[in-house]
Amino acid sequence: MKIIILAGGEGKRMWPIQTDKCLIPFLGKPLLYHNLKKIKDNVKGEFIIVATPQNKDHIEKVAKELELTYQVVVQSEPKGMADGLLSAKEYLKEEILVVNAEDLLDGKIYSEVAKGGAEVVFAALKVNKYFPGGYLKVDRDKVSGIVEKPGERNEPSDLVKLVVDYFKDGKKLVEYLEKITSGSDNVYEKALNQMIVDGIEVKFIKYDGPWIPLKYPWQILDIQGYFLSSIEQKIYSDANVSEKAIITGKVLIEEGAKVFEGAVIKGPCYIGKGVVVGNNSMVRETNLEEGVVTGFNSDITRSYIGPNCWFHTNYIGDSVIEGNFGMGSGAVLANLRLDDHTIRVRVAEKEVDTGRHKLGLIAGQGSRVGVNASTMPGVKIGANSLVGPGVTLYQDVKDNTKILVKQEYQISEHTPNLTSYDQFRKKL
Amino acid sequence: MKIIILAGGEGKRMWPIQTDKCLIPFLGKPLLYHNLKKIKDNVKGEFIIVATPQNKDHIEKVAKELELTYQVVVQSEPKGMADGLLSAKEYLKEEILVVNAEDLLDGKIYSEVAKGGAEVVFAALKVNKYFPGGYLKVDRDKVSGIVEKPGERNEPSDLVKLVVDYFKDGKKLVEYLEKITSGSDNVYEKALNQMIVDGIEVKFIKYDGPWIPLKYPWQILDIQGYFLSSIEQKIYSDANVSEKAIITGKVLIEEGAKVFEGAVIKGPCYIGKGVVVGNNSMVRETNLEEGVVTGFNSDITRSYIGPNCWFHTNYIGDSVIEGNFGMGSGAVLANLRLDDHTIRVRVAEKEVDTGRHKLGLIAGQGSRVGVNASTMPGVKIGANSLVGPGVTLYQDVKDNTKILVKQEYQISEHTPNLTSYDQFRKKL
Amino acid sequence: MKIIILAGGEGKRMWPIQTDKCLIPFLGKPLLYHNLKKIKDNVKGEFIIVATPQNKDHIEKVAKELELTYQVVVQSEPKGMADGLLSAKEYLKEEILVVNAEDLLDGKIYSEVAKGGAEVVFAALKVNKYFPGGYLKVDRDKVSGIVEKPGERNEPSDLVKLVVDYFKDGKKLVEYLEKITSGSDNVYEKALNQMIVDGIEVKFIKYDGPWIPLKYPWQILDIQGYFLSSIEQKIYSDANVSEKAIITGKVLIEEGAKVFEGAVIKGPCYIGKGVVVGNNSMVRETNLEEGVVTGFNSDITRSYIGPNCWFHTNYIGDSVIEGNFGMGSGAVLANLRLDDHTIRVRVAEKEVDTGRHKLGLIAGQGSRVGVNASTMPGVKIGANSLVGPGVTLYQDVKDNTKILVKQEYQISEHTPNLTSYDQFRKKL
Repeated sequence: MKIIILAGGEGKRMWPIQTDKCLIPFLGKPLLYHNLKKIKDNVKGEFIIVATPQNKDHIEKVAKELELTYQVVVQSEPKGMADGLLSAKEYLKEEILVVNAEDLLDGKIYSEVAKGGAEVVFAALKVNKYFPGGYLKVDRDKVSGIVEKPGERNEPSDLVKLVVDYFKDGKKLVEYLEKITSGSDNVYEKALNQMIVDGIEVKFIKYDGPWIPLKYPWQILDIQGYFLSSIEQKIYSDANVSEKAIITGKVLIEEGAKVFEGAVIKGPCYIGKGVVVGNNSMVRETNLEEGVVTGFNSDITRSYIGPNCWFHTNYIGDSVIEGNFGMGSGAVLANLRLDDHTIRVRVAEKEVDTGRHKLGLIAGQGSRVGVNASTMPGVKIGANSLVGPGVTLYQDVKDNTKILVKQEYQISEHTPNLTSYDQFRKKL
Repeated sequence: MKIIILAGGEGKRMWPIQTDKCLIPFLGKPLLYHNLKKIKDNVKGEFIIVATPQNKDHIEKVAKELELTYQVVVQSEPKGMADGLLSAKEYLKEEILVVNAEDLLDGKIYSEVAKGGAEVVFAALKVNKYFPGGYLKVDRDKVSGIVEKPGERNEPSDLVKLVVDYFKDGKKLVEYLEKITSGSDNVYEKALNQMIVDGIEVKFIKYDGPWIPLKYPWQILDIQGYFLSSIEQKIYSDANVSEKAIITGKVLIEEGAKVFEGAVIKGPCYIGKGVVVGNNSMVRETNLEEGVVTGFNSDITRSYIGPNCWFHTNYIGDSVIEGNFGMGSGAVLANLRLDDHTIRVRVAEKEVDTGRHKLGLIAGQGSRVGVNASTMPGVKIGANSLVGPGVTLYQDVKDNTKILVKQEYQISEHTPNLTSYDQFRKKL
Repeated sequence: MKIIILAGGEGKRMWPIQTDKCLIPFLGKPLLYHNLKKIKDNVKGEFIIVATPQNKDHIEKVAKELELTYQVVVQSEPKGMADGLLSAKEYLKEEILVVNAEDLLDGKIYSEVAKGGAEVVFAALKVNKYFPGGYLKVDRDKVSGIVEKPGERNEPSDLVKLVVDYFKDGKKLVEYLEKITSGSDNVYEKALNQMIVDGIEVKFIKYDGPWIPLKYPWQILDIQGYFLSSIEQKIYSDANVSEKAIITGKVLIEEGAKVFEGAVIKGPCYIGKGVVVGNNSMVRETNLEEGVVTGFNSDITRSYIGPNCWFHTNYIGDSVIEGNFGMGSGAVLANLRLDDHTIRVRVAEKEVDTGRHKLGLIAGQGSRVGVNASTMPGVKIGANSLVGPGVTLYQDVKDNTKILVKQEYQISEHTPNLTSYDQFRKKL
């Protein structure tokens, strides 16, 4: 069995997050690590990982750490899934299993699909409400067609196709893929449909476990929720946790982490290597990757905090911070509209309703937010940008951009009565 | 004995507080509850409560809870005290005691006046400095006249008439009231003066206990002070107080309340039903009505906080918050002028010196203050209004009004040297 | 031996600090106290202190407290060191030792120089890099000339002249001083050079202990560092330190000080008389002079805080606060540029690079900073000035000046759905 991992996808709607989706770390390891581990534990075979020129090295590192039998092939340009598969053409022979690198699924589905039992087997997600994906037309346990984004109420079933696809003969898939005019959209789905039309037997396995899409950056919070829910209580022996810190719920504290007096950690939480949770800070339902420093008196709640961020008396709620990010004292990431509306976010010129009542900031790598600045719910800050002190930020900030507030002042003479100040203080 | 409770008064100078004065809750019960209970404990009789169409139902609830013998009569429009009494005309027979619903007095004065001993008996407050009310002209233990607002240095005595008035024959009072041209001011006082002129014997009982007027909204703080001073230490059995919270002084914690680790409560304090005092928050000399949530790390000091308010890392000092009010993280209610002056407040187009060195915000029902906003001492926010993030509020905000700050920005390219950031952090 | 202490110097570059350099208190005593004590412990003699009309009384107090044998002479105008010495002319006879009042040196150098062993003996500081002072030209242990500010790479040696100068015959010094045209610069150094030219034997003692200049106000932090490093752990018996406070490292807590529950003090720290460290506040590597109040939840780090300052939920990092200074809740003194640059400060119209990566505010006596205001790294606030709430301060503020922010607002109608607010809260 060859297990084809598609890790060459773009994340067009992930701005300002620059890290490849599958390389975003959770619990100290890239998402890909978690996914490959799960597949390895469930399916025996050689991994063929389709990478990009940019993420190739990181991916190799992950594969090595997992001691996989693997090959990495490079898809030179992001030209879609079919192109990605064809980059690995030489490995598409006999039994293959095709999986998306970043899809988060229960491990069992891999072994179930990999069992085969037909020429082609798909995993099909049972959905309760319309999702803009490919729906299966089915006839008992057989697939009779795939309908891309049928629109609400036109769904042919309640089953959406996932990308956990078994092919008894990878070569045949290649033939079908190569028959479709390249450059057209959805080549992969067209090839599958053609297979069905040609009478090739396609079955499906129903999947009703968790499936968490990662299309928009705020969905990182959902993925984090999945990982946090799996955490077991553990404090590594060389972590340094004050007896005067308070830890409740399931909290995993990695080696080298320090938790100071008066700090409160309410699980589930992941406290990565070398993290410092400062005095009187509170961390709740949060993932702090390696090297994060909360500083004194911060409140970090339901947030994803990537590596090497530092804070100091801040509120960070329901936020996604990619990494190497810093905030000055008193800066606040607002996460709640003061009316009853859900939070809407601009994505590639369009407004998207996140469906969330609480969502804070989404920030790229290397950004800074100055003292006493405030960011509004759902705002995004690009990589390497700077939001100045005292700014109340209602708008997105592009990559490599500095935004400073210009205040107008009223300056006048001032003659306090110092004696009376003293007297005054005594009165208080 | 009929005890006539006048609960139909307007609170023209109480804006933005909308709750009827006598219905404002302290220690979990409306002011009226406390007052009626005190009268019930001191005077035997039937309560005749003059209500408004709006507060009628609430008042009935209070009367039932106290298991009073009572009638509620409705004064259809707020046309003054005499009109209020005449609304209850059918009950004004034989012995009556007339009391204002919202006046806070020691219980003993009710029984003393109710003893009678003359045709008419008033309670008279001994004052040390001029108060703009009705002064008594007296001759030994007899009243020889009432002088409305005589002006400073023209006081006929140091005795100000309260509204705890006994009449041996309520019918006679009705006659006198009906003789005065209706529509004129101070009908009640004119009627009383006419009684005196006509030779009816009017005595007075001197009162030197506490009397706390409630004419302006900040006086709610004085009334709260009265109630807090009476508090006995008690934690209801189903309240949940962390062993790592610190409680000093007399603190009453009601059922269902939660006090988290690191929280500090310095009595006297009232912590109402279901209140949540969050981690590291401090509450001092404060009344938190039902359902208040302090959030993480707030400092609530000498403030009146009505039901269902929520806070999050805020400073609330010497403030009056009616209820259902919320503040974003980092918002501050300043309570202290940075010079030696007392705090002045605009009331109905006029500036009133509160005489207070410390006074924070006065806020109506359902308002919100955004993250990192600041309000200046003595400012008022109307009901259902919103003060945006980052606003520094020097002015009052009307009911149903949104005020947002418009910031001007300087936006430029920014190219941080990320390597040096890291080096820099290592240096720190 | 007469020990001439020059305490008449001006501090032109010390604005906004008004206190005479030698009178700035550290560990509860003026710098002069510490210096005189050290000299007294190392040299036997009568102190002749050259004061100004302004600091004369304070200086007498210090001398008395130390039980010195002393005379105070007044230099009527700040006309330089030679003029200062000549003010004390009547005492310049036989052996004298001339010392600057504010120079911080190890005590041993005084005894070494005072031993004499030549007509004139200087202390000479060994420097590693260029310092704009007077360099010694030397020949073995003899001085063959003094070169004022030779410029980098033109230094005649690596020895900079300090002001610890022994003269076997003070009278001779007077003669030389009086020969130089008064009014010219560097009269003292010119006189010394003339002595050398005339063949008078001048030796030097090499000094390689600490020497901390006090030319700019931020150097107060360096001097503080010196004193803090000498602190021994001690809590005076009538100080009141909660068992729930956390104290680590060497901390000296003076009489009458109070440290509340949840407060954290990380040494070395000096906590002066009557200081109040409020609940949940943190103080690190800091000198808090008499009467300082940190309030609730402040973070005071590596800062010099003069007497009678009060704070309330503030961040004060790497700052110099002269005294009687107050900050409103949420105000922050930023101490770190969000790029890799060291902090530059304007001094007398010129920018000076402090060489520091962290530097907060420098504030004069009696100033105030309002709630939620922010000051940028290295900014200075003059005496008796007021920085209003919400100001983001990038510029210096002169003495006796008030600076308020003028915000522009967008005001509109607001009709929240109160029912839905409640529902909303329940959802959260």
